[in-house]
Amino acid sequence: MSEPLFKRLALIGIGLIGSSVARIAKEHGDIAAEVVVSARTQKTLDRVMELGIADRVEIDPGKAVDGADCVMLCAPVGAFADLATRIAPHLAPGAILTDVGSTKVSVIRDVGPLVPEGVHFVPAHPVAGTEYSGPDAGFTTLFQNRWTLLTPPPGTDEAAVEKVAELWRRCGSMVEIMEPGHHDRVLAIVSHLPHLLAFTICGTADDLADESRQEVLRFAASGFRDFTRIAASDPVMWRDIFLNNREALLEMLARFMEDAQAMSRAVRWGDAAYIEDKVERGRKIRRSLIEMKQA
Amino acid sequence: MSEPLFKRLALIGIGLIGSSVARIAKEHGDIAAEVVVSARTQKTLDRVMELGIADRVEIDPGKAVDGADCVMLCAPVGAFADLATRIAPHLAPGAILTDVGSTKVSVIRDVGPLVPEGVHFVPAHPVAGTEYSGPDAGFTTLFQNRWTLLTPPPGTDEAAVEKVAELWRRCGSMVEIMEPGHHDRVLAIVSHLPHLLAFTICGTADDLADESRQEVLRFAASGFRDFTRIAASDPVMWRDIFLNNREALLEMLARFMEDAQAMSRAVRWGDAAYIEDKVERGRKIRRSLIEMKQA
Repeated sequence: MSEPLFKRLALIGIGLIGSSVARIAKEHGDIAAEVVVSARTQKTLDRVMELGIADRVEIDPGKAVDGADCVMLCAPVGAFADLATRIAPHLAPGAILTDVGSTKVSVIRDVGPLVPEGVHFVPAHPVAGTEYSGPDAGFTTLFQNRWTLLTPPPGTDEAAVEKVAELWRRCGSMVEIMEPGHHDRVLAIVSHLPHLLAFTICGTADDLADESRQEVLRFAASGFRDFTRIAASDPVMWRDIFLNNREALLEMLARFMEDAQAMSRAVRWGDAAYIEDKVERGRKIRRSLIEMKQA
Repeated sequence: MSEPLFKRLALIGIGLIGSSVARIAKEHGDIAAEVVVSARTQKTLDRVMELGIADRVEIDPGKAVDGADCVMLCAPVGAFADLATRIAPHLAPGAILTDVGSTKVSVIRDVGPLVPEGVHFVPAHPVAGTEYSGPDAGFTTLFQNRWTLLTPPPGTDEAAVEKVAELWRRCGSMVEIMEPGHHDRVLAIVSHLPHLLAFTICGTADDLADESRQEVLRFAASGFRDFTRIAASDPVMWRDIFLNNREALLEMLARFMEDAQAMSRAVRWGDAAYIEDKVERGRKIRRSLIEMKQA
């Protein structure tokens, strides 16, 4: 077994991602000698101790980061500015501050200015997830063969970036460095927009007259079932993602709406070749994903 | 084992649904004493014989239905008018003609007028599927705990309707009778619209600049992966479904577009409560589906 990368890892927030990292850290032993967890409620912290996935829990995030050489923000991104304000006075010089948020421009905007001199800020995003949330949802194989994208601001200490990269590699992840704005645009199309559409169609169905709604539930074919699986995700996390990747999400949504209107027109006017072509393109993308082993 | 329901079942088209019915008929023995299969190409028919899922194959659909007491159209719905024209002169008085198409108003419109006097026409739709197609894709458990919706026109012989219902129950399906127009509206929202959206977003992603497209494929998060699974379905089948459920699909798409615009506006203006509410509704629908054991 390798030496632990960190003496003390503080996880601020312990949902699906945080509790998966905690489980890996406890199980492998090569990530941190000690894992401290902070969460908003004592109930969550009690559950964390019951699960045995932390050495210590602290309701006060400032106390949780005291003496930690790695601090990872694992809360919904909308809570980052407040959390950063509360932990900043407690961050030790030389410590690494990182996060797992799904939006990166907003994290750099909200957290960056609050990072004390001498603390290394390395924003990160493990692109992995399920529709489950909370400390019970995590599991040790969540990041295997998934990408973690690092978006360090220019001038970030290279050794700190490498340590965060190594942490994620030890979690089973592949690592890549990306410009934050580019990250937000790519994620807008591969993840944020699909979720927005899934939430929307569930609402559209729910608005149907009572009788139809019951039948929608009874006869949900495979298409709708998959959409509801996506739509079962955590409301606060997704609200924060949408609001913090506003520009890129609105741009991708606008492109999508144009394409959906074009499809609508093709259906109305019976443009069979157009429709077939679009379906074929879906298949092609699917095949590419399978070749790249992401499906 | 019960007596076979039919002496000779003719399957016209042998994709995912048809080949699942063929497998069940061959395996259980209580559906038909003999299974005859017709398909567009000799290659497919050769494969059917290799798979051992038919007693006899016929490239000519007219020959396939000769002497059959049950004929099931299992081709894409756009081919039904042509197929009905070709088989009509060969249908025996007293025989049952049914289908498995995903649109029912169009099937009654296209096939109904061609059904000879004395032949019982019982349109049906097993609401089940995967993203795979062709005679190799079928399996005997496809219909288990799924619904099959029957949409017999007014005045259809009740004994014939009951025989088709019994066929689907013996395939493991639950059966319900529904008005064809209502069927098309419910299916538009639970299946056809989700597929249209999935195909569309794959196209939107595919239209991004080359560099981004490569990254879309590399970093496809779970949201997009699920969409591409849906989008991997058979192009001709889906083209035909869209074109043959035009009115209902366009109405549901219009409702969805209004809702997506409202969501877009909420994201632009930072309406956190609206977004959270929509995500919560998605969760609620998901929970209902799980309670109803459809997920």
